[in-house]
Amino acid sequence: VNTPPNSSTNNPESTPTAAVILIGNELLSGRTQDINLQYIASKLAGHGITLRETRVIPDDEAVVVEAVNTLRHANDYVFTTGGIGPTHDDITADCIAKAFGVALPRHPVAEEMLLAFFKEREIEPNEDRLRMARIPEGGTLIDNPISVAPGFNIGNVFVMAGVPRIMQAMFDSILPSLRKGPVIQSVSVTCDLGEGTLAAPLRQLQTHYPMLDLGSYPGKFEGAPRVMLVARGTDEHAMAKIEEALRSMVIALGGKIEAE
Amino acid sequence: VNTPPNSSTNNPESTPTAAVILIGNELLSGRTQDINLQYIASKLAGHGITLRETRVIPDDEAVVVEAVNTLRHANDYVFTTGGIGPTHDDITADCIAKAFGVALPRHPVAEEMLLAFFKEREIEPNEDRLRMARIPEGGTLIDNPISVAPGFNIGNVFVMAGVPRIMQAMFDSILPSLRKGPVIQSVSVTCDLGEGTLAAPLRQLQTHYPMLDLGSYPGKFEGAPRVMLVARGTDEHAMAKIEEALRSMVIALGGKIEAE
Repeated sequence: VNTPPNSSTNNPESTPTAAVILIGNELLSGRTQDINLQYIASKLAGHGITLRETRVIPDDEAVVVEAVNTLRHANDYVFTTGGIGPTHDDITADCIAKAFGVALPRHPVAEEMLLAFFKEREIEPNEDRLRMARIPEGGTLIDNPISVAPGFNIGNVFVMAGVPRIMQAMFDSILPSLRKGPVIQSVSVTCDLGEGTLAAPLRQLQTHYPMLDLGSYPGKFEGAPRVMLVARGTDEHAMAKIEEALRSMVIALGGKIEAE
Repeated sequence: VNTPPNSSTNNPESTPTAAVILIGNELLSGRTQDINLQYIASKLAGHGITLRETRVIPDDEAVVVEAVNTLRHANDYVFTTGGIGPTHDDITADCIAKAFGVALPRHPVAEEMLLAFFKEREIEPNEDRLRMARIPEGGTLIDNPISVAPGFNIGNVFVMAGVPRIMQAMFDSILPSLRKGPVIQSVSVTCDLGEGTLAAPLRQLQTHYPMLDLGSYPGKFEGAPRVMLVARGTDEHAMAKIEEALRSMVIALGGKIEAE
């Protein structure tokens, strides 16, 4: 029995929420720099879905099952990356089947696609390669236009490859089917003032625009220290006014605004 | 009352475990590509500490408090990045104080360092800038050689900046004080065989070397599809033999090994 998904505090009726689970020992050993999270996060924001949490976890059955079950009950959507290849360390499908309490048979369509692909390339369709046709009972396939072995969707969980270009193709094919929330708009103003100078007026501005999420990010822009002020939100009226408000604030404080 | 930390299944007596918490809305909106995790993960591996889990969470008090309390009880060490600047969205120190149930006064040494830094640069030491001197009661400072505002350590939790070069300096100053585990060694062999060809013999090799963690990672190397086989572990005897075993396996399967 699923508990009802929680939603964003901003807009409890209409903003879908999501969690991402990045699965793979290589992400926790430092061997691999993940680039999948940012891709998924940007696209979710553009689709009006609030990404509430991401977990990076090892190829460990108990840990994967626990993370999937916790996060699928707390969010509208869960996306996983990694662990769906043919080798012994690819255990994500097994974990998802276990999390949902279902069997993990070979999916006839997946098997047929893989067999055709192997035949065309004169690759032997051994037991391990055909592990990639195993889909938790009740799951539907997510197309892999690059190396055929599919991802899958079961319940509100979407299971994708870890290789970035395959993951991206899979995610792009999923995205149109997801419930759209009010699109989260974003504007930014970069200036030469310190965060300590900006803090008080920015706090005041946040109080005037409680429906928006104001952030300040120090960094280097063209070699010099700069602060980027970012406003994000779904309220069109407020978003239309916030850029001018941020610019006026910077100018009133004696700062200079960087051109884009 | 702390529950005893769990340890790695490999070496329950002597391998310290860790979790990382990356804090910041910008990581979940896709605005920022995190590069802190890989830095921390690599250095922990080199120090013999097993990184068991990472969470990426928003600047939301309830979420941060829950993550910190869950992970500090389950691991020997917890490292956080982000949210220790002067602006309203910098709430990490408040969250840590709440998680530990302690007050958040200005730390006299931190305050003195900040005041000296501001004076030297003719910066006004306003209330917001001095927020960065607030350290949970009982915490000790982590030096910030770049912009002075310190991180801090309380219990087994280490709180660091989000800006990568500041985080790196902070982490490097912490690392020598952490308990060292048996160093996790790693070897890799890259070859031109498919994962489906490698899967069965690799599975067998994993059975012969249960003390090691064998992984296979498909990717492009110099433009052509290649698979990198990686062995990681602390058992010196097994690690001395595994590279030759991986190479022999590839050659027996008719594959070619890539030079480094």
